[in-house]
Amino acid sequence: MANSLPSLHTCLSPALLNLYDVNHTTVVIIDVLRATSTIATALYNGAKCVIPVDSVAKCIELGKQIDSITAGERDGKIAEGLSYGNSPFEYPREFVGNKTLVLTTTNGTKLLHMALEKGAGQIVTGSFPNLSAVCDYLLGVKTPVILGCAAWKDRINLEDTLFAGAVISRVKQAFSINCDSSQMAETLYKDAGGDLYEFLKLKNASHYHRLTGFGLEKDIRYCLSADAANVLPFYENGKLVVHKG
Amino acid sequence: MANSLPSLHTCLSPALLNLYDVNHTTVVIIDVLRATSTIATALYNGAKCVIPVDSVAKCIELGKQIDSITAGERDGKIAEGLSYGNSPFEYPREFVGNKTLVLTTTNGTKLLHMALEKGAGQIVTGSFPNLSAVCDYLLGVKTPVILGCAAWKDRINLEDTLFAGAVISRVKQAFSINCDSSQMAETLYKDAGGDLYEFLKLKNASHYHRLTGFGLEKDIRYCLSADAANVLPFYENGKLVVHKG
Repeated sequence: MANSLPSLHTCLSPALLNLYDVNHTTVVIIDVLRATSTIATALYNGAKCVIPVDSVAKCIELGKQIDSITAGERDGKIAEGLSYGNSPFEYPREFVGNKTLVLTTTNGTKLLHMALEKGAGQIVTGSFPNLSAVCDYLLGVKTPVILGCAAWKDRINLEDTLFAGAVISRVKQAFSINCDSSQMAETLYKDAGGDLYEFLKLKNASHYHRLTGFGLEKDIRYCLSADAANVLPFYENGKLVVHKG
Repeated sequence: MANSLPSLHTCLSPALLNLYDVNHTTVVIIDVLRATSTIATALYNGAKCVIPVDSVAKCIELGKQIDSITAGERDGKIAEGLSYGNSPFEYPREFVGNKTLVLTTTNGTKLLHMALEKGAGQIVTGSFPNLSAVCDYLLGVKTPVILGCAAWKDRINLEDTLFAGAVISRVKQAFSINCDSSQMAETLYKDAGGDLYEFLKLKNASHYHRLTGFGLEKDIRYCLSADAANVLPFYENGKLVVHKG
């Protein structure tokens, strides 16, 4: 029976994505701090869609063509030429409801476009705020799954790995997992215990360090909170929209 | 004071090595199952030197030119055209003593040549059989350090990561560590507890699985034993020789 289960792999850095076959595969894009947390939040708060783009120039250009909010970050700060940043708190319902958000980020949107170019079967985005929505979806798919961590400029990071571990701990019985990175991720998640914020602080996680330097502790705490914006962003026709189950 | 300590990073796959500056840096090549365990064992058992080469063809060619043992493995088995393989048990003192071993392996010797081409300051090799020798050496260097995991065809593996974690747990007070991969490695090593063999078995580690398929449980147990061949292989003039402390 075990052989008939679809495979699940964890790709800990975009620089390793070419080791995996993404065709006919569901790829979960994971950029916990903060792109995919913000995407889930904007859609949960009623955004019509989020259009992920891979450069600031494209973001500005698209903003001129369609009625939208242009947003993005480079190196953790609002990118020059854009109006909004990458904090989930910038997108409450009264602001983002029924709007289109065009978003570019250092790592997350880049990985999404890599997966797209390589021919991924389906692309969804994952973060702690939509953890249950991701797991529920994966338990229903019949395809292989790749948990794709956006990392930081290709360097593996703790928070994306922890999210992969959280997903694996919930869905593993439905998949065949022969992947050391997945085992590492799940072990790490179990080791972290209940308080992920304290774990990142204790381990002096590099991106925790970077964002607290900008005074963004509140963002980090939100981005580590399970199911605060529990919808599934699903990529179709160039846009991330809420998946109708 | 902390700022004056040299940095330490862990590179979990050769595909990530280009993210790190290896110049003026000590790079520890880690290929626990089994290249670097075998290198330490051959030198501990009196081999004059180990010449790591990155292809089977070069290994055969060099074997014709100099009096040596030609050895190597591809995909876990003795490579075609070579006389010996990559098991530490093939190199007891009575066979390898005072001989030159020319060795090529799937992952370990490849990573060593990558580090060399990128201009690494010093190159040493690490494995559980020479764990203490590696740690003693690192505690004395004044350079930055990169723990370079050979992985399996660029896919991150548990055993090399565990060795990086073992080193970090022993030397971390002498380094400034701002590296999530290092934190992950140390967390994993602590989580594994005393019995690394059982941990790899429990986690169904991919290379554990591959080697036990070839009946190599004894090799795995040896390769996870601390200080069974406690010398430091140091690369100079194209050869790995025992470092004189």
